[in-house]
Amino acid sequence: MRAYLDHNATSPMRPEAREAMLAALALSGNASSVHAEGRAARAIVETAREQIAARLDCAPRQLVFTSGGTEANVMALSPAWLGGGGPGRLFISAVEHASVLQGGRFGADQTAKLAVDAEGVVVLETAGQAFAAWHDETGGAPFLASVMLANNETGAIQPVAELAALAHEFGGLFHCDAVQAFGKLPVDAAALGPDLLTISAHKVGGPKGAGALAILRDDLPVATLLNGGGQESGYRAGTENIAAIAGFGAIAEAAPPPWDRIAMLRDRLEADIAAIAPERRVLSGNAPRLANTSLLAVAGMDAETILMGLDLAGVAVSAGSACSSGKVAPSHVLAAMGAAPELGAAAIRVSLGWNTGDEDVERFIAAWKEVYGRFAERRRAA
Amino acid sequence: MRAYLDHNATSPMRPEAREAMLAALALSGNASSVHAEGRAARAIVETAREQIAARLDCAPRQLVFTSGGTEANVMALSPAWLGGGGPGRLFISAVEHASVLQGGRFGADQTAKLAVDAEGVVVLETAGQAFAAWHDETGGAPFLASVMLANNETGAIQPVAELAALAHEFGGLFHCDAVQAFGKLPVDAAALGPDLLTISAHKVGGPKGAGALAILRDDLPVATLLNGGGQESGYRAGTENIAAIAGFGAIAEAAPPPWDRIAMLRDRLEADIAAIAPERRVLSGNAPRLANTSLLAVAGMDAETILMGLDLAGVAVSAGSACSSGKVAPSHVLAAMGAAPELGAAAIRVSLGWNTGDEDVERFIAAWKEVYGRFAERRRAA
Repeated sequence: MRAYLDHNATSPMRPEAREAMLAALALSGNASSVHAEGRAARAIVETAREQIAARLDCAPRQLVFTSGGTEANVMALSPAWLGGGGPGRLFISAVEHASVLQGGRFGADQTAKLAVDAEGVVVLETAGQAFAAWHDETGGAPFLASVMLANNETGAIQPVAELAALAHEFGGLFHCDAVQAFGKLPVDAAALGPDLLTISAHKVGGPKGAGALAILRDDLPVATLLNGGGQESGYRAGTENIAAIAGFGAIAEAAPPPWDRIAMLRDRLEADIAAIAPERRVLSGNAPRLANTSLLAVAGMDAETILMGLDLAGVAVSAGSACSSGKVAPSHVLAAMGAAPELGAAAIRVSLGWNTGDEDVERFIAAWKEVYGRFAERRRAA
Repeated sequence: MRAYLDHNATSPMRPEAREAMLAALALSGNASSVHAEGRAARAIVETAREQIAARLDCAPRQLVFTSGGTEANVMALSPAWLGGGGPGRLFISAVEHASVLQGGRFGADQTAKLAVDAEGVVVLETAGQAFAAWHDETGGAPFLASVMLANNETGAIQPVAELAALAHEFGGLFHCDAVQAFGKLPVDAAALGPDLLTISAHKVGGPKGAGALAILRDDLPVATLLNGGGQESGYRAGTENIAAIAGFGAIAEAAPPPWDRIAMLRDRLEADIAAIAPERRVLSGNAPRLANTSLLAVAGMDAETILMGLDLAGVAVSAGSACSSGKVAPSHVLAAMGAAPELGAAAIRVSLGWNTGDEDVERFIAAWKEVYGRFAERRRAA
């Protein structure tokens, strides 16, 4: 029995999502067809849309299904949302997911980064100054700002409501990548106030292959990424992946995992590690954080070596984001936080989830203690 | 028991695909993670890549997985494949799928259409003239031509090998949308000769949510649509949908359905209809066609009325493409063929598949005869 503590990379399927997928896989129809089989497929898509909209407190028609968070982010980051008139500007935080960091369809020279503090949290004052400077320089030209709700590496929660209000104050649009937050925190679209919001299913027990972009204002131009058949009210062409959408709806409707208990497990894990290695650091440990995430580092203790040692001992964790083709590269998140390079090279991400139990944490602690023991021995010998 | 004869819209899942998906859904990992769970997910993706490459006779590394045919087509239709130097030109046939017809990331003024004959087949001579004229006018500027292998509405098979050779002769790249052909015809990348090739899974019993773009030349610039994490060798960001990819691989590896028997059923269906209504037309009936497709029309007999009558009688067919949000709109395919508008308004598409049996065709014939009887009565009365 292994301990899977890499839910921020992807989470095993919850039974509710699996059952909804299996039911949908048994259907024959294309959701765009008018016959009975098509209408049955359509009903699944629209039920899921309602389930997810209820969870976000938005209107079902405001949701556009995509193949995942990356597609929704790339779709969101387009100058087309700003209408005509000038190239526009994209502001992103320095700790965004790679799919936002690349800037979507904004050119590199149109994109500016918002700084974060040592805890990885966007500094409201400098963000406000950046928006104001753009506004003043351009006489109020439109811009888009994109800041995530929760960071995938550290779990740090960003002041999205305040940032959205700031962007609006200076005439900007605001996009929020809530992929890591959705299903782990209440994500209330109205309370947070973004104009565009990305969510996906597979970080909290839903299927891979399902995401959505919520378009929360009715007065925006239609900006598309995939054109073709008129699916999703013309916003996103392509035959609907009804099984994945059904699973997405099911996890939106299901009772949330016991995040309070998961937070206690995570806190115990951090305390147990501190008891073994008092010098251990928890990155973003003083910021508001997701209940499930811990980015831990002992300076000098190589992350890749830890990962391999833990894997051999039956424990799966990661070094930051999973997306970068398995390479352990320096984290742009830690660099933006001003973390020392020796912490960046040492950081491992432990992310718990809906099926994590005491025994998983115990197995992690035991395995980590072994790896740390060997490291500490070498450190003493050096 | 209903008769589902709308496989060109989407096909029910074959058991092979379903089993592969279920096995993949039971895994925990992200294919980009380095731990055991990640490697197990990666193995599924790479096995599927090999299965599909074997079917296409290309190298596994030449396949980029996408969320489906539309995404692969939009990814293919980019001036970026042509490298720098001028806006380039896109030539498409007049009967392409909507996702090609929209031109992808080529502007409308960069896109030109290739005519088809009355059977819906691209005219080689005029295509060659169009490529030659562009070549002469621009002194050999690069261009992209995109022609489908088999039409989704009529089943007509295009002379893709000849068109690819012509495009190459005049310095162009060639893309082929083989979504409707894959799994129904041998699609041999080397024999057909395109530079880019789109396929998807769900038209032949694979899952929705899985497609691929085959990039069949090694000297092309890297042109992407979704940027972010470095998945798919940097060609397509986003967490791999391993269950859908597994199902895609499974149908590529599975023995093909008995297309000879299916063609006999289709031919019998067309003959039975002709026996009832000698005036019935089979669109593209004199072109080489897919074994499973029949686009039938009796002038004056309204397609929407037929569809509703058949649906009530337990038979699912469609009026042309399923993609256009259920609307029965005039078909651009029939218009390009120069078909009379009264035929366009009457055409219904019957598309058979892997699980079609005698009883399905019999049910269709019985139901169609009823609808036709009412129509013929009104026609006599008028």
